[in-house]
Amino acid sequence: MHTKKAFQDYYPDQMSYCFGCGRLNEHGYKIKSYWQGEESICVFTPQSYHIAVPGFVYGGLIASLVDCHGTGTAAAAAYRSQGRPMDSEPPMRFVTGSLHVDYLKPTPLGVPLELHGRVKEIKGRKVVVDIDLFAMGEVCVRGQVVAVQIPENMLPAN
Amino acid sequence: MHTKKAFQDYYPDQMSYCFGCGRLNEHGYKIKSYWQGEESICVFTPQSYHIAVPGFVYGGLIASLVDCHGTGTAAAAAYRSQGRPMDSEPPMRFVTGSLHVDYLKPTPLGVPLELHGRVKEIKGRKVVVDIDLFAMGEVCVRGQVVAVQIPENMLPAN
Repeated sequence: MHTKKAFQDYYPDQMSYCFGCGRLNEHGYKIKSYWQGEESICVFTPQSYHIAVPGFVYGGLIASLVDCHGTGTAAAAAYRSQGRPMDSEPPMRFVTGSLHVDYLKPTPLGVPLELHGRVKEIKGRKVVVDIDLFAMGEVCVRGQVVAVQIPENMLPAN
Repeated sequence: MHTKKAFQDYYPDQMSYCFGCGRLNEHGYKIKSYWQGEESICVFTPQSYHIAVPGFVYGGLIASLVDCHGTGTAAAAAYRSQGRPMDSEPPMRFVTGSLHVDYLKPTPLGVPLELHGRVKEIKGRKVVVDIDLFAMGEVCVRGQVVAVQIPENMLPAN
């Protein structure tokens, strides 16, 4: 159990409707990401119907988890690199510039999936995050997210 | 309106529970793909809650559409390259080896999204498919799927 706030809990309300990670999207996945040392961690257990073939997790869901854990990690890393707490103003929010996912082996359904993120690069408004997805201690998927900070004038008004 | 069967309508029942494209997954997206000349086409209109930020489509959903339209196109291309109808035995079904998505611009919500697939390479059990996603006539996303034919002994039993 995490008693501290997740990265996504710091997003401003108007940025919290993302289907993957928005705490206010009642239809969505509401993923939660946290620092664990130098890595960011997200644990998610898919529903029974999130399958590709019976017994194995749907790759599109996995891509979604990689995507949102990546942009969340990018935001947290950007605040950290500036020595700012995540609830300080102005808010920084990242969108996905590109997403790459390698499906190394089928990901089993019915167990928690653990995503480990590592910040590979922070340069200007761009943050690159490498992500491994583990199931039962085995890495099943490797992904990379190139996240880009949203220009402030594109943030939805409060 | 399409009067002919979609690629996905030919999948055997036990392979039709994919969250993205299985016609028997009642929670899923049930995407449909068709040939249109040398391209494969899929049209999908996201739900109101499939958003990243208000007004724009969630990138994880887009990755899912690219993924399943890619594997569907790979299967159709493999049958076509062997001169076989898609309902001939033995069934060929493809899974995703890797997925790449470049988000060129925000994809607007509330309009049908049109995915155009092109077979870039067929080599052995591997098919590479390039996909453009259009909204209102503008390309918003470019993707590539490396699809791999499932070994017959990994197909779920009927």
